[in-house]
Amino acid sequence: MNLQAHEPSATQQDVTGTLSRWIVGLRGDDIPAEVRREGLRTFVNWAGCAVGGADHETVDRAIAAITPFSGAATSGVLGRAERFDALHAALLNGITSHVLDYDDTHLKTIIHPAGPVASALVALAEQRTISGQDLLTAMIIGIEVECRIGNCVYPAHYDRGWHITGTAGVFGAAAAVGWILGLDETKMAWALGLAATQASNLREMFGTMTKSFHPGRAAQNGMFSSFLAEAGFDSSTRGIEAPRGFARVLSDKQDYAEITDGLGTRWEAALNSYKPFACGIVIHPTIDGCLQIRKEIGERVNDITAVALKAHPLVLELTGKKTPRTGLEGKFSVYHAAATALLRGDGAPTAFTDEVVADPGIIALRDRVTAVADLGCHEASVDIDVSFTDGTRLSHHVERALGSREVPLTDEQIGTKFRTQAALVIGEKAADRFLQDCWRLEHMTDAAEMARSGVRGA
Amino acid sequence: MNLQAHEPSATQQDVTGTLSRWIVGLRGDDIPAEVRREGLRTFVNWAGCAVGGADHETVDRAIAAITPFSGAATSGVLGRAERFDALHAALLNGITSHVLDYDDTHLKTIIHPAGPVASALVALAEQRTISGQDLLTAMIIGIEVECRIGNCVYPAHYDRGWHITGTAGVFGAAAAVGWILGLDETKMAWALGLAATQASNLREMFGTMTKSFHPGRAAQNGMFSSFLAEAGFDSSTRGIEAPRGFARVLSDKQDYAEITDGLGTRWEAALNSYKPFACGIVIHPTIDGCLQIRKEIGERVNDITAVALKAHPLVLELTGKKTPRTGLEGKFSVYHAAATALLRGDGAPTAFTDEVVADPGIIALRDRVTAVADLGCHEASVDIDVSFTDGTRLSHHVERALGSREVPLTDEQIGTKFRTQAALVIGEKAADRFLQDCWRLEHMTDAAEMARSGVRGA
Repeated sequence: MNLQAHEPSATQQDVTGTLSRWIVGLRGDDIPAEVRREGLRTFVNWAGCAVGGADHETVDRAIAAITPFSGAATSGVLGRAERFDALHAALLNGITSHVLDYDDTHLKTIIHPAGPVASALVALAEQRTISGQDLLTAMIIGIEVECRIGNCVYPAHYDRGWHITGTAGVFGAAAAVGWILGLDETKMAWALGLAATQASNLREMFGTMTKSFHPGRAAQNGMFSSFLAEAGFDSSTRGIEAPRGFARVLSDKQDYAEITDGLGTRWEAALNSYKPFACGIVIHPTIDGCLQIRKEIGERVNDITAVALKAHPLVLELTGKKTPRTGLEGKFSVYHAAATALLRGDGAPTAFTDEVVADPGIIALRDRVTAVADLGCHEASVDIDVSFTDGTRLSHHVERALGSREVPLTDEQIGTKFRTQAALVIGEKAADRFLQDCWRLEHMTDAAEMARSGVRGA
Repeated sequence: MNLQAHEPSATQQDVTGTLSRWIVGLRGDDIPAEVRREGLRTFVNWAGCAVGGADHETVDRAIAAITPFSGAATSGVLGRAERFDALHAALLNGITSHVLDYDDTHLKTIIHPAGPVASALVALAEQRTISGQDLLTAMIIGIEVECRIGNCVYPAHYDRGWHITGTAGVFGAAAAVGWILGLDETKMAWALGLAATQASNLREMFGTMTKSFHPGRAAQNGMFSSFLAEAGFDSSTRGIEAPRGFARVLSDKQDYAEITDGLGTRWEAALNSYKPFACGIVIHPTIDGCLQIRKEIGERVNDITAVALKAHPLVLELTGKKTPRTGLEGKFSVYHAAATALLRGDGAPTAFTDEVVADPGIIALRDRVTAVADLGCHEASVDIDVSFTDGTRLSHHVERALGSREVPLTDEQIGTKFRTQAALVIGEKAADRFLQDCWRLEHMTDAAEMARSGVRGA
């Protein structure tokens, strides 16, 4: 008696198998040009964030813990000088690229897709030879896989408390690395099974260093899953859909068609978006609106008596911290973000430092910001009502924030974001050169050229 | 607005903090002598299993995947000649000690407690100096922590599909290693938070190599959690009980008193049990009964026409495989286990090889075994009804199987089990010497002496 025999709907589905067949059969040419182009924008945006976060204290502490255990130092970490084995380099790239909360977002699932996938591939590119085209193809495959798996279980899975970037991301890393390794269909299914059994990461960790550990560990664990499968380490071939597989155990909702339908024609990887501001996407309409108000009112920012926000309930749920004490906590405070955008015109990483969070002027304005949740408000919208000492008021509505699918960042804006943050870590000249190398990734016969160009002292 | 503010029952609880305080405050002398004695029996049983499983193909394949990435080769793997960094050695010890399904069981939760904890500690003992007494103390702490966390969420957590040895085990490894590292209360809580966010492993993987990956990865991930916390990598201090912490996200049942009540007086670590047979505990009554029947009927085992089992429903749910094709699958077949116990008098690892599973005589008897589930049947009981060619029948009832809490293995039986399996891997002489070294663990000023004694070629 096998429990699976009692659940025909599960046995009829061949989700992991269908996905594995699609991954191993895909060639770079099968990906439409516009999807490849969005993939390149994703890569450039990610690489800038990886360098931008590289000198964060979180990364220093992780490196201190890792160093005694790291193996053959094949792979660098973007924005750093140290070298590590490829698995640990993948972990570190994942931490650096997420630590400023500045990376990309698949808006349907709030997955940050590039972190788990690109972090593994860039580390792998120095361990073995991968062309720039293949690296991009593998990254698009990995992102497609993780976003589809995310769609299958979102929102119930996220609502339960899972940090979906980690739980779905581990599949993306396994798929991307498995494709590079040339796994056959069975071994690819094993790799996804090994990913399924390692899927983890809790939203409880938001606001601590452990949040950025999640995409890093997903990259490392997914990569290791594919290396194990390559070595013949077997696993379930139904890790996603089995009665005790990923989707049922970690979610109360399963929509398997989101994974298997339209593979190769509907591209989730083309729906990626890039943050203009260095914090959770839910505050972006508020920052965008406050920056516009600042532009309009000029010096009168010093005369504000009250700021009233009306926003989607998720804004308060995720970023409702009234009195943040650190830069990291500031990212979880829509009050701090509004005050800093108004007073300093800043939504970049420099807006979320310990110093700015402790600034008396910022605190004074922050304490005058109130917010109410309105289910009728779109996640990318906000209403901002500002009152002044002279009794006048100003109302501002943001229909769709900069960085949303409707108002995407231009290539130039992605480049500016890259240079601004990377220059702080590796200097302007190195940042400019690395940016150019990222844009021309597909023209490199050896993607290690790009990886080496992004480390400190390159 | 913080969601936690809406859940007073969660904020009132200080589960992770209470547990952390208890761990960091504990000294070896605080553990009663009989608990330490059971801990030593746990350790000896575990070490024999680790050597016994060391030459399994599963381990060879894991090593093939790991070798390119392993760091400073500080630590051996029991029963093997290769050396690895301590994190990878922990992973491998966890795989070897579980791969034969022959290790220990905390019967209240079906956790196999030693694997995640001892695997990490033995690897750590070669990376830094640990006395034998401290190693035993740390192991008991780790087992206490994982079993209490298991009690908190069992059975809903297990029923949902989680492999509780992995999900609870990662906390045990973090606690044990964290105690050795001398983490303070806050860092211990971070280590448990990092463990919480890595808690994973699905029951879907049962019957594949990935099942034994679980205790290994729990050991490795828990150990890494403590190293990260030691380096100041922060995390939630409420990883277990927070609204989006471990217990709520991974289980529909939470009984926090199981974790926090009676710390230091009620010892779950004293309730460990040791398998006399090399497969899941649920088949043990059947094997025990069939061995007794074989002793009673002698040559008449060749005249059996039918074997009818009446057992607890979990027996069929977990081990209902009618036609196993490999040795590993044989462990998930109560039919194969019954046939092999009757025909060969064997329940050791030698009963679960590919050859025995494919043996025509075994298959012929296996196909004459039937089983029905009976909720009234205790998990440690079974009714066996045997029919013979001459029309006679024999009924046998097992009230409590060998290896249960009521009929525990003696020290001598633990030693015999150790020698029998270890001799197959490292030879009789080395197995005898290593067994003696394990029993005298508490008298070693440097536990590395024990670790080195158990590797191949020692």
